[in-house]
Amino acid sequence: MKIALLGFGTVGKGVYEIVKKVNMQTQNLSVSRILIRKGKESILPEMTDSVEEIVNDPEVDVVVEVMGGIEPAHTYILEALKHQKHVITANKAVIAKYLKEFNETAQQNKVKFYFEASVGGGIPWIQGLEKALRIDKVNSISGIFNGTSNYILDQMTKSNDSFNKVLENAQKLGYAEADPKADIDGLDVANKLCISADIAYDINISNRDELPIFGIRNIELKDIKYFEKKGYAVKLMGFTHQFGNQYDYVVEPALVEKHTLEANIADNYNLISLNGDTIGRLDFFGQGAGMFPTANAVVQDVLDIKEGKGHLERDFDQALEYDANLYKKDYMIRAAFDCKALFKDYAPTDKGDFLYIHQIASGEMHRLMKLILKKDSKAFMVGLPDSIQKNGISRVVSSSQEAIA
Amino acid sequence: MKIALLGFGTVGKGVYEIVKKVNMQTQNLSVSRILIRKGKESILPEMTDSVEEIVNDPEVDVVVEVMGGIEPAHTYILEALKHQKHVITANKAVIAKYLKEFNETAQQNKVKFYFEASVGGGIPWIQGLEKALRIDKVNSISGIFNGTSNYILDQMTKSNDSFNKVLENAQKLGYAEADPKADIDGLDVANKLCISADIAYDINISNRDELPIFGIRNIELKDIKYFEKKGYAVKLMGFTHQFGNQYDYVVEPALVEKHTLEANIADNYNLISLNGDTIGRLDFFGQGAGMFPTANAVVQDVLDIKEGKGHLERDFDQALEYDANLYKKDYMIRAAFDCKALFKDYAPTDKGDFLYIHQIASGEMHRLMKLILKKDSKAFMVGLPDSIQKNGISRVVSSSQEAIA
Repeated sequence: MKIALLGFGTVGKGVYEIVKKVNMQTQNLSVSRILIRKGKESILPEMTDSVEEIVNDPEVDVVVEVMGGIEPAHTYILEALKHQKHVITANKAVIAKYLKEFNETAQQNKVKFYFEASVGGGIPWIQGLEKALRIDKVNSISGIFNGTSNYILDQMTKSNDSFNKVLENAQKLGYAEADPKADIDGLDVANKLCISADIAYDINISNRDELPIFGIRNIELKDIKYFEKKGYAVKLMGFTHQFGNQYDYVVEPALVEKHTLEANIADNYNLISLNGDTIGRLDFFGQGAGMFPTANAVVQDVLDIKEGKGHLERDFDQALEYDANLYKKDYMIRAAFDCKALFKDYAPTDKGDFLYIHQIASGEMHRLMKLILKKDSKAFMVGLPDSIQKNGISRVVSSSQEAIA
Repeated sequence: MKIALLGFGTVGKGVYEIVKKVNMQTQNLSVSRILIRKGKESILPEMTDSVEEIVNDPEVDVVVEVMGGIEPAHTYILEALKHQKHVITANKAVIAKYLKEFNETAQQNKVKFYFEASVGGGIPWIQGLEKALRIDKVNSISGIFNGTSNYILDQMTKSNDSFNKVLENAQKLGYAEADPKADIDGLDVANKLCISADIAYDINISNRDELPIFGIRNIELKDIKYFEKKGYAVKLMGFTHQFGNQYDYVVEPALVEKHTLEANIADNYNLISLNGDTIGRLDFFGQGAGMFPTANAVVQDVLDIKEGKGHLERDFDQALEYDANLYKKDYMIRAAFDCKALFKDYAPTDKGDFLYIHQIASGEMHRLMKLILKKDSKAFMVGLPDSIQKNGISRVVSSSQEAIA
């Protein structure tokens, strides 16, 4: 089975190394083509700067897209699928946007489109989720999907350094990118949660601009210390729930009690949880990024194709309704001005530097937060372990509380 | 696809329910036969007390053994395989003993023998391990494999009740069996670790009587409180490491630092971890027992057979050498008499009620502990986060320290 790599950065190099290693044992996998940027020096015989050459090579079975970004990744993936090449990608941004199109094009051309590495890196999360879905309805997904933000929050807690200082250090160590926006503003989590929800509910989240997403850019060391004193750690998390014919979806800083698994995810590790009808709570923990873990997940997809192990078939066309206000929970907000009036329906009470807001729907909270940010661009908010209030029924559904407490 | 159930206890009933539910969606799975004990009343039309009738039924594709125990489970599984029925079992005791024989018989008869539910219940651990092995050498496995013992230790910590009181409560709640020996003496963990190591190293652990296994029967509330004060939780854990051509294997109470994942596994949940060359640390958390989680894992195996998804092929015939003394670590021991002399080579020092023993090989520690138990049947020991001392190289390999610290 011959593999073409589109891109030869960290993950591409990892795939190249692992295929060489696996090949020593099985003798039937190889990287035969590597796409490099036009004008870049070709240092390996497999390298070419022509994507046409790759998609028209009858010997190439699988195209692995590891260049990242939306374009030209999107165009190249479609080209490869239309030339009846299986495609594997680790590129969550392009999948979150075009999953349904890629899936349809793959089906039309009778090839596979797999993307295990895109969510949770080396963690077999997509497979775990798809496996659970063979039997169960998955009612909720939650997790720490982004290693960089987890590293920053963990380091702030341990080192007592400010957000900016820890971020600078993370950038020096290569844990954070020069432009950290995607990681610290929750966009990377949003992409991964979007892919997970698309699979779990067989939907296609298209209008993503309106989704409630709030990151950790504004967190201060004193916030973390205050939460710690109250028995909580703060984590950047993604949540989605399905209830009847509706689902919600939220990315935000979340308080977790110190004895939960979530609170004890250190460094740049990820933890992703699902809740299913019969399986109950199931969690996956591991390295959500990094050269070899991510490349491992890519090669696992290659091996699934080679061994004819089909993944779950999805059309992403279920008519579920998105409701940003499906769930209510308590929030805390820190703003430089008095914003009690905004939350008058939610019994706002002062707690240290924070305003404690009771049982507000997540969509409403994020909408009001956007108003607050216009007056105080440094304001910060955090959700508490969530409870459901739906059709008059109020019950605690924090997956951590359910399982751990 | 028609399924015969051998046994209709908790797990059997769970399989019956889930198959009915899955069947509503896919219309091609059913339980057509249920074996009940001779003389027991047949309350469902599928019930029979004749195993011959089942294995000779040409319509039965898969036999699911959920009766437990060694015999007649062992005989029935072999009979079913020889009649070219696929066999799925959740029975760790019989697998740990006869895995190689079952596997060979299945291969000879060109059928499958799957056992996902046997280790970690609903956690997709066997599949996760087998998947990792497609690419990686798995260097170590560790985990909390037994929910009952974890529940007892967790409840003692939270309720300040004695071991016996918590055990009685667990028995009343159905969390512990009337005869709790397998759970509290580490035998259940040993079976699960044995199955995991057999797969990971492609070996066949046959002489299991000499393996170092020590349970939690002798733990006292004051031990737990002392460890807690020092920043540790205590968990009944299984460990195995592979190093060169050797492996070790140990079941014992282990101290884990309070900020590790292990320390925060509450109730009767399980956590199982592997460490692979490229994937690094990968953990699976979920319900290790219970009607629906365990039955879910059984039905997952049925679906793999139905969908033609082969599991990793193993012959269990690698010539790895078992070395009980492959690793050294620190231990603490509580005995009613002065046993310093026994440990004179390991710098024994007094710590509270305990004797602290430095860098002793696990096999040697367990051997000396057996001598101590002859004089003090209530003595207790616990291992500290482990370090390797091998060929002069001493390095910390506690998976929790590596990943979390």
